Parts: sequence; structure tokens; C-alpha cells
Amino acid sequence: MTWKTAVVNIPYGGAKGGISVDPKQLSKGELERLTRRFVDKIHDFIGPDKDIPAPDMGTNAQVMAWIMNQYSKFEGWTPAIVTGKPIELHGSEGREEATGRGVAIITDETMKRLKLSMNGATVAIQGFGNVGSFVAKFLHEMGAKIVAVSDAFGGYENKGGLDVPGMLKYAAENGGGLKGYTGAERISNEQLLTAPVDILIPAALGGVLTREIAGDVRAKIVVEAANNPTTAEADEVFQKKELVVVPDILANAGGVTVSYFEWVQNRQHFRWSLDRIRQELDHIMKDSLSQVWELATEKKVSLRTAAYMLGIGRVGRATVLGGIG
Amino acid sequence: MTWKTAVVNIPYGGAKGGISVDPKQLSKGELERLTRRFVDKIHDFIGPDKDIPAPDMGTNAQVMAWIMNQYSKFEGWTPAIVTGKPIELHGSEGREEATGRGVAIITDETMKRLKLSMNGATVAIQGFGNVGSFVAKFLHEMGAKIVAVSDAFGGYENKGGLDVPGMLKYAAENGGGLKGYTGAERISNEQLLTAPVDILIPAALGGVLTREIAGDVRAKIVVEAANNPTTAEADEVFQKKELVVVPDILANAGGVTVSYFEWVQNRQHFRWSLDRIRQELDHIMKDSLSQVWELATEKKVSLRTAAYMLGIGRVGRATVLGGIG
Amino acid sequence: MTWKTAVVNIPYGGAKGGISVDPKQLSKGELERLTRRFVDKIHDFIGPDKDIPAPDMGTNAQVMAWIMNQYSKFEGWTPAIVTGKPIELHGSEGREEATGRGVAIITDETMKRLKLSMNGATVAIQGFGNVGSFVAKFLHEMGAKIVAVSDAFGGYENKGGLDVPGMLKYAAENGGGLKGYTGAERISNEQLLTAPVDILIPAALGGVLTREIAGDVRAKIVVEAANNPTTAEADEVFQKKELVVVPDILANAGGVTVSYFEWVQNRQHFRWSLDRIRQELDHIMKDSLSQVWELATEKKVSLRTAAYMLGIGRVGRATVLGGIG
Amino acid sequence: MTWKTAVVNIPYGGAKGGISVDPKQLSKGELERLTRRFVDKIHDFIGPDKDIPAPDMGTNAQVMAWIMNQYSKFEGWTPAIVTGKPIELHGSEGREEATGRGVAIITDETMKRLKLSMNGATVAIQGFGNVGSFVAKFLHEMGAKIVAVSDAFGGYENKGGLDVPGMLKYAAENGGGLKGYTGAERISNEQLLTAPVDILIPAALGGVLTREIAGDVRAKIVVEAANNPTTAEADEVFQKKELVVVPDILANAGGVTVSYFEWVQNRQHFRWSLDRIRQELDHIMKDSLSQVWELATEKKVSLRTAAYMLGIGRVGRATVLGGIG
Amino acid sequence: MTWKTAVVNIPYGGAKGGISVDPKQLSKGELERLTRRFVDKIHDFIGPDKDIPAPDMGTNAQVMAWIMNQYSKFEGWTPAIVTGKPIELHGSEGREEATGRGVAIITDETMKRLKLSMNGATVAIQGFGNVGSFVAKFLHEMGAKIVAVSDAFGGYENKGGLDVPGMLKYAAENGGGLKGYTGAERISNEQLLTAPVDILIPAALGGVLTREIAGDVRAKIVVEAANNPTTAEADEVFQKKELVVVPDILANAGGVTVSYFEWVQNRQHFRWSLDRIRQELDHIMKDSLSQVWELATEKKVSLRTAAYMLGIGRVGRATVLGGIG
Amino acid sequence: MTWKTAVVNIPYGGAKGGISVDPKQLSKGELERLTRRFVDKIHDFIGPDKDIPAPDMGTNAQVMAWIMNQYSKFEGWTPAIVTGKPIELHGSEGREEATGRGVAIITDETMKRLKLSMNGATVAIQGFGNVGSFVAKFLHEMGAKIVAVSDAFGGYENKGGLDVPGMLKYAAENGGGLKGYTGAERISNEQLLTAPVDILIPAALGGVLTREIAGDVRAKIVVEAANNPTTAEADEVFQKKELVVVPDILANAGGVTVSYFEWVQNRQHFRWSLDRIRQELDHIMKDSLSQVWELATEKKVSLRTAAYMLGIGRVGRATVLGGIG
Repeated sequence: MTWKTAVVNIPYGGAKGGISVDPKQLSKGELERLTRRFVDKIHDFIGPDKDIPAPDMGTNAQVMAWIMNQYSKFEGWTPAIVTGKPIELHGSEGREEATGRGVAIITDETMKRLKLSMNGATVAIQGFGNVGSFVAKFLHEMGAKIVAVSDAFGGYENKGGLDVPGMLKYAAENGGGLKGYTGAERISNEQLLTAPVDILIPAALGGVLTREIAGDVRAKIVVEAANNPTTAEADEVFQKKELVVVPDILANAGGVTVSYFEWVQNRQHFRWSLDRIRQELDHIMKDSLSQVWELATEKKVSLRTAAYMLGIGRVGRATVLGGIG
Repeated sequence: MTWKTAVVNIPYGGAKGGISVDPKQLSKGELERLTRRFVDKIHDFIGPDKDIPAPDMGTNAQVMAWIMNQYSKFEGWTPAIVTGKPIELHGSEGREEATGRGVAIITDETMKRLKLSMNGATVAIQGFGNVGSFVAKFLHEMGAKIVAVSDAFGGYENKGGLDVPGMLKYAAENGGGLKGYTGAERISNEQLLTAPVDILIPAALGGVLTREIAGDVRAKIVVEAANNPTTAEADEVFQKKELVVVPDILANAGGVTVSYFEWVQNRQHFRWSLDRIRQELDHIMKDSLSQVWELATEKKVSLRTAAYMLGIGRVGRATVLGGIG
Repeated sequence: MTWKTAVVNIPYGGAKGGISVDPKQLSKGELERLTRRFVDKIHDFIGPDKDIPAPDMGTNAQVMAWIMNQYSKFEGWTPAIVTGKPIELHGSEGREEATGRGVAIITDETMKRLKLSMNGATVAIQGFGNVGSFVAKFLHEMGAKIVAVSDAFGGYENKGGLDVPGMLKYAAENGGGLKGYTGAERISNEQLLTAPVDILIPAALGGVLTREIAGDVRAKIVVEAANNPTTAEADEVFQKKELVVVPDILANAGGVTVSYFEWVQNRQHFRWSLDRIRQELDHIMKDSLSQVWELATEKKVSLRTAAYMLGIGRVGRATVLGGIG
Repeated sequence: MTWKTAVVNIPYGGAKGGISVDPKQLSKGELERLTRRFVDKIHDFIGPDKDIPAPDMGTNAQVMAWIMNQYSKFEGWTPAIVTGKPIELHGSEGREEATGRGVAIITDETMKRLKLSMNGATVAIQGFGNVGSFVAKFLHEMGAKIVAVSDAFGGYENKGGLDVPGMLKYAAENGGGLKGYTGAERISNEQLLTAPVDILIPAALGGVLTREIAGDVRAKIVVEAANNPTTAEADEVFQKKELVVVPDILANAGGVTVSYFEWVQNRQHFRWSLDRIRQELDHIMKDSLSQVWELATEKKVSLRTAAYMLGIGRVGRATVLGGIG
Repeated sequence: MTWKTAVVNIPYGGAKGGISVDPKQLSKGELERLTRRFVDKIHDFIGPDKDIPAPDMGTNAQVMAWIMNQYSKFEGWTPAIVTGKPIELHGSEGREEATGRGVAIITDETMKRLKLSMNGATVAIQGFGNVGSFVAKFLHEMGAKIVAVSDAFGGYENKGGLDVPGMLKYAAENGGGLKGYTGAERISNEQLLTAPVDILIPAALGGVLTREIAGDVRAKIVVEAANNPTTAEADEVFQKKELVVVPDILANAGGVTVSYFEWVQNRQHFRWSLDRIRQELDHIMKDSLSQVWELATEKKVSLRTAAYMLGIGRVGRATVLGGIG
Repeated sequence: MTWKTAVVNIPYGGAKGGISVDPKQLSKGELERLTRRFVDKIHDFIGPDKDIPAPDMGTNAQVMAWIMNQYSKFEGWTPAIVTGKPIELHGSEGREEATGRGVAIITDETMKRLKLSMNGATVAIQGFGNVGSFVAKFLHEMGAKIVAVSDAFGGYENKGGLDVPGMLKYAAENGGGLKGYTGAERISNEQLLTAPVDILIPAALGGVLTREIAGDVRAKIVVEAANNPTTAEADEVFQKKELVVVPDILANAGGVTVSYFEWVQNRQHFRWSLDRIRQELDHIMKDSLSQVWELATEKKVSLRTAAYMLGIGRVGRATVLGGIG
């Protein structure tokens, strides 16, 4: 995560830790006790100025609330110890939509730089979970035509444009997915990835854009909402085809950015409205795309290479300035 | 205070503590020494992340300054340990006017929701102290006609509208009250409460709107600037009369809100201008009224009931999310 | 520095400390080790709530970075321990230009109060270092005509207005100074100080405006960008001539103000853009000039006397409010 | 407890706190969780230099172990936070026997001062619990003849001397009491208290020596092993009869003294052998009796009055020396 | 080390940490800087109440002094942070001789329990380093006849008894070893291990008593001064031969015991004389041997098994008492 | 004080601090408030592990009690923060007599090394204050004949031996001095210093043994109970006369040694009896004299030179071992 946070220039690093357990096998009481014991053991090693946990697979806002509660026993009331908390307990507005919104903003900016109009631009989105559904929502609001989406149970297509509000409503009422949705033609995941669209947004699993599929991709722009959706070989194919790929460490940095906003709000003990959250997020995403784009242009490298140059360069300069002592 | 702060959604709870002494019997030196010894004893139990004292009856900004000074001996420079400090010593702009301004904003919003015009609306205000005088000032600025006010020494009336600027000037030059003011007709407190006005604002003592008086109240709206001005029986009368009562925990929450702003400014070590204070306060008051109003409408309950539902509900959800550990 | 920070009303005091050594005689490694040992010894006596070092002669942003790094070994990650850090390591935008910009703003406001137009006003600036060059830049942007500037190697004049952008470019490309610049007539430092201009800005050394020179100064306004440029005797001459002198503790307070902004940003862990920095700085400078001006008018004293009255008065009131305990 | 610790001159004060619960109704798991939550709540208010809990009725060494364990989660490994811990977990040797041994030492010293021989002296002991049984053991070892003992189920008598080792063995094998013991004549509790012995030691409940019984007491010496066994009226009777009463705050101070030794050992992280514990305890008990005796003689007051004079006087002098600040 | 410290009942656990470096390749300056950086990184994880480093292979008293010095920069003056310090800098008397002295005391006690006289008893000692030489010295002083010793360069034998004082003097003057000593017959290491002696003391490497050699061992007692000198198979052979083996975790615990004494002295800030150190050490070694012996007798197991039962049992009971919370 | 504490090998350094005020001009209340404010200002710079204040001229046990009390407000109960406290408030037994007793012990040991008998040895003591009177008391108890003493009001002589117990009693009853005592012949201070005695003990002011008087001194031994009683020139005279001079940094180190004992007791929270204090003090004084004597003999230098070699050498070795980091 270090390079990603460096690209968007927020003062965060990256580390992972966890417990080897299947939370679905635990009762809520067991999960709470397990979480508290974990905090008992690590509370000396985390802190608002040291390491700030955030939710990832297998944990959620409730678990973050327990972490905050248990940590506060040791160090006093400390909302800033963890992000991803429930809004009712010092969480931030706009965190759920953050990654998806960031992807949409980045897509929009990329189109502008390519002198392409978002109005009526066609889009295929792989994945309709927390990320993909918000990407669909925001691009739809920006005037794009979402012609294909998919989730774990297959894809849907409508060349005239899918009914995005209807699909969002369906998902909200059916446990978050599109399973059983009948309002569009069914297509396979491969059909989706190779659909004749302007913009392709893989927003689900890693490694889906393999060398084989890459050759068949017909989009002009690929925006990596998922982590590592493009294999190294596929990336070479895209470069040869001069297809524009916006890399994951830039494209999906909106999530960690709003985590950072939550931490800032907690430290200031002052909430930001959803409007302000969006405005600050938009500003950071645009600014980061701009810097990556300029570096790519100046150095004649891909956006991915430029993004890494930017992120690693920042960490490197800060390290050198810190000294050898 | 816990329910009040929950209604306006600021991260404060509520508790009271004090010394059983009549400060008027003490010299300034004795009062300072007493305050410092009190801090010596409680400094472990208060803190910017634990409990933040604020002035109440019998204390003032000077006493808060001593608290900050003595606390800082123990824990280092800590302006955020107490609110209500003098502006020259890390206090906030707009604190004095905060409760009155909040009442005026709430009154204005209530009128709007009832599709009533503030311009020329008639108002009776009981009390012309720190709260009542600012209510008068701001409602006057909003175009309302203040036809009756009172203080501990009786009331004044002018059906064509009192000379509010003149009365504020008189009070400022005469120790804060209207005693001796001769610029209007005299009326009794009961006449004031039952005057034929659009808006009645009790801004002095608790319990003044008894069952008997409630029956005679002719206002369309009662805005509780004082704490508990309406007895339980009177409240029933008002409900039967379908008179709109904006409850104290919503109406007069402006004071604690600006105390909270002072704490936020102290933590950020960055002052807000009076303009910003007012803007943030107005936003919170309007937003809170809006939420209470919608809940009352949705659940078909009084504003008072809705305010408690909102406040208690927030504390309850946060408590449940915190866990049982 | 205490009176200066009090004039601009920021919560900073003033103290100086250092090591008696010529840093030019040390290798970078020696300088880093020396800096770290210094922090080892003083880390208990400094702190974000105690004393916040900042660079002065002989130190720079790199040294501040080492201070932050070494201090953080003891107390954990603490960017707010020191200001003047590199932008890449928690420093602030706009710090380099801050003093010069503040001087320009103050000059502009002073002109406005004297009902004089900045457009085409003639300016002589002594010094073209970090302060003077930014003064020239901003006044030029405001429409003034910079007719004379000097640095340690002598002065330049063009009665029709110097080519400020060209000179800035020349200096940037030639190690920061004008040595060797040939784009204007040469004048002596004394000629510069007594040039027939509207505005004279000493922005280099102290004590340059002696009694003798003061008699010959032909400017209407002297804005003290340097510290103590005017001797006590010269000040009397200026007062007799009714020449307007904007004193150093007001005029050049922009630098410490942006140091303060850096500290505020570090405490909030949230960066301000250059736009916001400038906007906040402009507001503070204007507001301070306004208060000094009004006090000078009201008390019929010079701006210098008024500035000291304001600064000392603020510290005095805060001290009295703090109590005798 | 403050006066008691002052009499034996150990640096301890006195306070009580607890949870209103019947521990017999709780499972071991519930008791452990309850204890830990209690420590969660009070850990800021106790400490090796603040307040050191110790077991009393309803708690035991296991509970103290949990307190130490939970407290150490917050403050790191801190054996000295609580006394009465199991010997295996930083408890002290000799704590169980401490009160009884102290009573025996005090009895012996009192006999010496009255020029009476302990050898063959007759003793009646009310109570055969933790205190009484150890009193019997140690006095027996000193050569006294224990002629009567009782517990909650009645008393036993043998004018030629009870078989103390046999009774201790019986009690150890029968849950701690004498219920069912058949090795001696049965007597009532009243018979025991008024038996014709040299030494009477009430070592069970408070208030057993009433005015009525006091008149019939035939012992020369009463040593109060229990707390408050003598009513105020009985005390007057004893004074008139010139019977020597060694008061509880002196006689049974051995328990808190060895608690103090446990704390000292924990702070030094160095164990004392049982021999050293006994030697230090004997020294303190003898020294305290000596000081009380001399004060009683000098001031011509009872031992009880002298003990209070000594204890209160020490606390008073320390308080005055501490100052009024 | 945990089981060893539990056998001698001192409140220490066990852990190891280090740097992968060959200290012989570093200059003194490099070694000091390396040590200080190591402390910079681990200072949060060690502490007088957490983990107390002590020297092992590759480090020495000087390194411990640096650790103390660097740690004290962070936490203030803390001699108790590390043991094995130089005597001049808060180290303890008697630390160098501690392991050897402990082995000698254990040997003596074992002889007594077997009703064997130390006077004239024959001894073979493998190793003449820090441990073996002190074993020789103390057993010689106790009257034993040291007939064979060896070091890395071979062995020496004198059936009438070696000149121990002479050999110690030779070693002291020749860099600590016997290389070149000519005052006795030369023997091989195997001859030493199978010499016809009463007592065999392996005090050098682990694994020297293999199954093959075990069969030829003619001593009555083996005292394990080295760690793990006896292989598991050899141990079975010894058990069959009913040879008495005093296991390493008991026999060589003298070293860590005096490390513990150093820590106790540092915490009390009070030095113990060499006499007191020896007296406390002797007491602990005798007491531990006594407990192991009794357990072995009672449970009919070897001394090794009994030592583990004692150590593990203590840790187990303490763990259970600490609770499951 | 650093060299003195190094000679007696206690872990103390030396520094002085104070307030420029005449305590005799202050009321007790003023003195207490002044002391508390002083502690308010320095409490961060002192501490049981940093700097431990102790009384010197102008302060006393009461002032030390206030220091402890005020410091404890900040850091919690901390008796070890200051020495010289009243015995009733964590002070040590034997502190008053400590310096005098140390001098007597040193004198006795010196006599033994010179093979001289203390029994009947003649002694002159200048000064009968806190040091001199205890020197007289202890030397008298050791069998010496005190033939001359003096205080600020002149001297007394009795060649057959003064009535020491009588003089101590007189002083105790007359405000601490001998003024008005009539039980002996009067002599001048010069007569005292040049009296024909075995032992001369200057125990009052510095600089009394000038070159002139030194030539007339007839004692065999001079023991410096005062600080700096011998001028550098006098010291040369004594060396030429081969008179034995026991230097102040050794002779009068008993006072700081018992201050150290008080600190040790406070840290252990365990009192030492007067017997133990004396035994530990005697041991340290004898041991130190012994080391100084041996070094003087070995290096063929005066006792003064040897004492400095010992003290400075210890500090030097510890400094080198601490490293250059």
C-alpha cells in the first residue's frame, strides 16, 4: 500500500496483520472476544501516530468499532486508532463509495486528457460489488452509457445502455448482487472483457486480463479498479496496442484516501460533510492523475511506470532527507 | 446534557461537578486559590479526551482561565482542557451570543417549515439576559417584530414593535438588565406569556409555562430557550391545542455547540473567525431541526418526543456498536 | 519574537538556542551527527506544545528534517516538532515566499489607507535575497514600478521600472544574487535609500537607516522588511517628517506566520494548498495592519508604537488572565 | 486501617472498596471475568504508589492473582499492585500465620512487662479459624497451657491443657473447623469467656465482650485478636477492674504488616525466607507494644488510649509537616 | 532458560535475540555504533520489568555498558535494563565466578547426600575456561583432589592431585588457557572422561558424553557444568548404571542467578558485597538441589526428570493462577 | 560533591541550585509558598533517578518535606525525590549524627593504621555545631580525651579532658552552642589549633589552617571535618612536617552517605534501624579509608592526592565505559 499512498501523497505507509481464523465460523460474541484479545496483544504496536488498522476481507465496521473500544481502555478515548468505523461511531461519510467514486473521477479525467467526451461513452464494468456498483453509479451520473456489467454469477449487456438505477436498486434489495436479475441480456465474463466499448473497468478479481484476452480487448481505455487485474504479459500487449491503462495504484486509491480523511477528522474531532469529502477526494484524484500523466508524458513511459516513479520517488526523497542516523 | 449533545450530533457527553461555596463571599485571590486546589485534586480525571469543564452558574471566563493555567502545570500547555475561556486566552469568538443565535435560527427554520413569514411576525420573549437579549437581537435583524420582553423586574410591551437596538444599548449601559427602562408600556410576566403573538420564547427560568398558563397561551409557536420552561401538564395542553413546541434540548443547544467549536479550535490550534463560527453553528442548528422535524413527521410524534428519540437513539446505537467487552 | 507573534495574534512565543559552530566547516555527515546529538540533549525541553524550533541563519530545511527524525526516535513520529522542513517531509507550501509576500500585502494595505494607488507607484528595495526578491515579485504583480533594487554587491536603477521577471530569472540562474547583472544602471546603496520613490523597503541588514540618511529619505512610506533597519535617531527624524514607517514586527511577520501554518498542518496531518496558505496569510497580515492602524489613529501614536502597544498588551492581558498562582 | 498501620509505623493508609455480589453464586469463570472488569474500571486509581488492594472477606489469593494479571495488561508486569497473592505468584511466605503470630508475640511481651511467666500460663481462645488456630499454635509452642477454645459450633475445655497439635491436625483434616471433635469437654461460648484463665483472647467476632460478660471475666489479660470484640461499656468495666486489655489496632496488626512485607518484597523483586519474615514481624510487634506501653505509663492512660494517641499522633505530625499547600 | 530459572525459583523467563554479525570483524567504534542502533530499535520492547538482556557469546561487559548508556537516553538512567555490566558501572561482584561456584556447591551437596566425603575425593573436569577453572578452584578449596583437567588443546593428569593454584596462575598469565602448560602428564579428552574418579564434571561443550563413552565412565557422579553434555542415549546408560547425574538446568544455574542478583541490586540501588553474593548464591543452589533431590526420591525419578518436573510445574501453576482472561 | 561521592563509591553525582533569598526574612507561609513554586518550576528536572535535592545552609527538614509534598502532586507519592526529610515523613535515622560519626570512624581507623591507641589520645576540635559535637561524642565514647573545643564564641580547654557529656547537655539546653558555658578554662581559637594534642579536628569554617598556623600545629593527625579547612600553602607545610592529614572529601563524607541511605530506604519503602545505619556507614567509611590509604602507600602520595586519584579515577573509568555515543 506504500506506493499507492505515495502516489496520492497522503502520509500513510502500508503493512498487513491478521488472525488466521474463519470469522464465519465464530459467533458474534466469540468474534468480539477474539478481536479484543488481539488488541490486548498489539495495543503497544499500533497507535494514531504509528499504525492505523483498517478493515479488509473478513472484517467490517463492527470489528473496527470493537478495536477502537478495546484500544481506548488502554490509552483513553482514541477514535483515530482505526478507520472504517461505523458512521455512528466516528466513521466518515462517503467511505463506502470512495473507491468507486475515485475510479469514476480518474476515468473522467483520463477521457478529458484524451479529448474524448464522457457523454455517451460506452463502458463495460467487471464486478458489481462495493467498487463496481459505485463506479457504475457515478459514471452513469456523468453521462456515460454502461453497456455491460457482471458479477460472480455472470454478466448483463444492453448495447443501448443498462438501467443502472434499476440494477442498483435490485442489488440493494437482493443482498448486494445481481443474481436473478432479468432486466438485460446475459453475457459471459469473457464477452464483457472483450466488448466493443470505449472504457473497460475490471473491478473484481486480480489476473483477469491475461495475455490471451488482452489481444481481444477492444476498449480504448482500461481503468484498473481491481488490484492487479492485468498480468505482466497482458500489460505488454496493451502497451503495444497503445491502449491507455490507468494502473490500480492510482485508479483505486480513493478508498485509502477516504480512510485517511476519517483519520484526519478523528484527530480534529470535527466531521466533514459528504460534500466536503467528495470535494477533497475529487481534488486529490485529479491532482494525482495530473502528476502521473505529466510524468508519463515527460519521461515517455506508461502511466503505470509513471505512477511507480512518482510513488517510489517520493518515498525515496523523504528517506534520504530523514538522514542516515 | 448527553441527550442535547446527541441531538446536535457533537461528540460530547455530560456530567456536572462543582464546589459547594458562594463565590461572591470570596476575594479574587481566594477564588483563584480555591480553583487551583480544585484542579490539583481533579486533574487526573479531566482531560481534552476525557472530560472538558465549561462555565456554568457561579463561574466565568476568568475561572476557566485559571483552570487552564493550573492544569497546564501538570500536563503542559493544554488550552483544550476547558471551554468558555476568555477570547484573549484561547477562547472562541461568538460564544456569548451562541445560545441566543441558535434559538433565533431554530425559530426561523420552524417558521419556514410552517410556511410562515418571519417578516413582521410578532414575538414575545421572557428574559432579557444573555440568552433573551441575543434572541431579540437576531430575530429583530431577521425582520420579526418583538412586541414584548421581560426580565426579573417585569415586562415591557409595544404592539408596534419594541425598540430592540435601544433596549440592548440600555441594558449594556445599565449592568445588563432593563431595570429602570422607560421606553415602553409595562406589563406583567403573565401578560407576556399570554400575549397575542406568533412566537413565544421563554428564555429565563424553568417551569414558567404551567398548565393554567398553557391554556391561555395564544402563540402559534413556543421555542424553549430556557431549560424546562414547560411543565409536563402544560406540554399536554400544548399538544392538544396543536401548538408547535420546539423543545429545549434542540432549541438552546447553540451554547454547547460553540463550546465544542472552542475545543475543536484549541485542538487544531487554529482560530475560526466569527463568520465561520456563525456559519458552522447555523448549519448544525438547521440540520438538527431538520432531522427532528422529519422524524416527528414520520413517526407522528411531537418535536420533543422526536428530539429524544433522535438523541437517545444515537447514544444507544453507539453503545451497542462499542460492544459488551 | 514574542511581540511579533503577538501582533499577528498567533499562539507562539519566542526564544533562541543554537550551537557555537561554523556549519561550513563541517562535512554533511558531521553536521547530521552534531544535529542529532543536539536533539539528544534538548529533546526533553522542546515539543509541539512546548518549544518548536525553526531554521535561522546557518541551518536549513535539511537540518530541520534531521531534527524531526531524531526527535521522533524518542517521542514517536512527530512532524510538528519543528517547522521549516522540506515540503517532501511535512514542510509547508509557500514558506519560502512568506516574508516577502507579507511585506507586499502590508505595503498594499498601507497605500490603500493613505488613498494612494499601487498602480505605477515607485518602489526602491534594498536587498534581493529571499525577502527582497519576493517583495519585488509580488509588488510588481500588484502593478507597482520597481525602480531600484540592490544586493550585497551594489544597486540597480531604472526610472522607468526595472525588468523584475528578468532579474528574478537572472538571480535564480546565478546562485540567488544579482552579481554580474547588466540589465540596468548601477547605483550605490545610499543612492537607493534616498531615491525619489513613493515606497522604500529596506529588506537586508539592520541599522541602514541612520540619522544622516533619514534626513535625505524622499519616500512617503518606509516598510521595514528587514529587522531593525531604522535606528532610534532615524525614527525620530521620520516622525518629524511625518513619513509613514511600517515597523518590522508587523511588516515582516509573514515568515513566522507561515511557520505557524506548517505547525497547524502538521498537527492536523492535513496539507493546505498554496492558495489556501496565501489566503490565510493575506487575511492575517491585513487584519493585523488594520488593528495597528486603528490603534495608532485612536491613540495618536506612530505605527511602531501602536504595534508594540498591541503586542505587549495582548501578552499582558493573557498573563493577567492566567493568574498569579 | 489508617490508625492500625500508624501504630505499627508502616507507610500504609486505609480504604475499602468492593463489588456488591455474592461470590458463592458465581462460577469460577464468572468470578474471573467480574474481577477483570473491576480492574478495567479502577486501574487508574490504584497502583503500587497509590492504593494497594488486599484480600478481605469474599476474596482470596486466586482473586488477587487475577487482579495482578489484569492490572499488568495496562501497566506492565506489576506484582506490587496487590498483596495476598499466592506464594507461587509473588505472594509472601508467612502471610497466613501473620495475624495469629502477631497476637502471640504481643501476648508474650505483655506477660513479660507484667512479670508473669508464659510457661504454664492458662489461655482461653474464642475462635479457631485462621487467626485463633495460629494463636493457639504459637502460644502452645511458647509453653502456655491452652485450656479452652471455641469455634462457631461451640467450645472445648481441658483444665490440664488441650491437645493443641491434635486439634490443629483435626481442623486441617476437617475443612478448617473443630466440628465433630471429641477430644475434650464441651463448654459454651460464655463459659469460655468467663473461664478462670490468665489470658483471654477473643479471636472471632466483634462485640462479644459486653458489659454483662465483662463483669464476669476472670482473666488478667485480654488480647483483642478480633476487631472490636469489646464494647465501649465493657471497656469501662475492664478499666475499673484494672484488667489489662491489649487493643485490636495493636494486637492484630500482624496481618497488614506481612501484607506490607509482601509489597516490599515485590518492589525489591527479592523474596524473604519465612525466617526473615518472622524476625521482621516479631521486631515490629515488640517495638510497637513497647512504644504503646511506655506512652500509656507516661500519660497514665489505658493501652487502647495510648495506641490511638500513638497512631493519630503520627498521622497528625506527618500531615502538619506536609504543609498546607 | 525458562525451566532453569524456574528450578532456582527466580522471577526470570527466557528469550534470545541478537545481530547476525561477527564482532571480531568490527572496530570498537563500529561495534559501539552497531550496539546503539540495535538499542534504538528494541528499546520499546525491553525494560527492567519486561526483558533484561545479558551477555552471551560474542558480547561482553563493555557491550552491556553501551546498552545501558543508550537505553538511558530514552528512558532516563536505568542500570537495571541489562546485567553483566562492568563492576565499575553498576555490575555485580561475583558474577564471573558464579557458574563455577554454583557447580562446586551443587557437587558438594550431592556428595553429602550420598554420604561421601569431599575431602580427598577425586575429580576430573573437562574444560578450564570461565566455568571449569572456577569449579577447579572452589572444589580444590573444599578439599577435593583434582586429578584431571582439559581444555581445547588437550588434557592434564596427576593422580596425586594437580597443582590447581599453579594452573590457575598459569592460565591467568597465558591468556586464559593451559596451552603450553608442562606441570603434569598429558592425557586425551577421552581418557579424562573415562578416568577412574569419584566425580566427573563436563564443563565445556555439549554432546561430549555419547552412548559409547557413557559405558566407560567410571565416576560415581556426573555434574553437568556445560549445557547438554550428555546425549539422550548416554543418559539412559547412566540411569542403568545408577550413576548420579546432576542435570545442567540445576548444576549450572549459578550464572543466571547472579545476573538476577545484579538486577536486584540495581533496582535497590544498593550494592551487595562479594560475601553476601556468595552467601545468597550458596543458599539458592543448596535449596534448589534439596528440592530436586526430594522430588526425585519421592517420585522415584532421576534428578534430571525431577528438575524438569519442578521447573515446569512452577511455571504451570503460575500460569493457571494467572487466569484465562 | 562528585569526587566525594566517588571516594565513598555511592552512585551520586553533585550539583547545586537554590533561590537567592534570605529565608529568615520570610514568614513560614511565605517560605512554604516559595518552596512550592520552586518545585513547580523544577519538577521536570529533578527526580529519584535524575537529581535528588538535599538540605544545605538556609534549608532544613521542613523545607524538604514541602518539596516532597509538592513534587508528589505532579508525579504521585515519591518520598525518594529528596533527602534530609523529617524522620516522621520518610527521613532516615542517624542522619543528624552522620557526618560527625563518619569523622570519628575515620579518625579511629587512621590511628589504628599508625599503630596509635585511641585510648587516652588527646584531641582538639574546632567547632561544636552539628559536626563537631558529634565528633566529640563519638571520640569520647571511643576512649579519647577531648582536651579542647571551641565554637563561634571562643574555646574551652581542660588538659585532663573536658566533660563531654556535660558540654553536650549544656549545648542541647542552650540553643545548640556553648555560649556561657563555664565548666572549663577559656582559650582562643589559635591556641586550640596549635594545642599539643595527638589529633586536631577542624570542624567549623574553611581556610582556618593557614600557612602561619600550620607551622605551629603540634598534632600528629589532622582530620578535616570541615570543608577546605587547610589552605594550599598550609598543606605543603604539613607535607614537609610529615603530618598525617585526612582530607575532607574522605573525612566528612558520612553526611552524604546517610543521605544516600535515606534514598535507598525510600526506594525500597523499608526503614533501616539506627543500628543498621551505623553499621553500613561504619563499613563504608572504613572501606574508603582503607582504599585511600593503600593507594597513597602504593603511589607514595599524600592521603589527599590519593583520595582525588581514587574519586576521579572512578568517574573517569565509568565515563569511558559509557562510550562516546
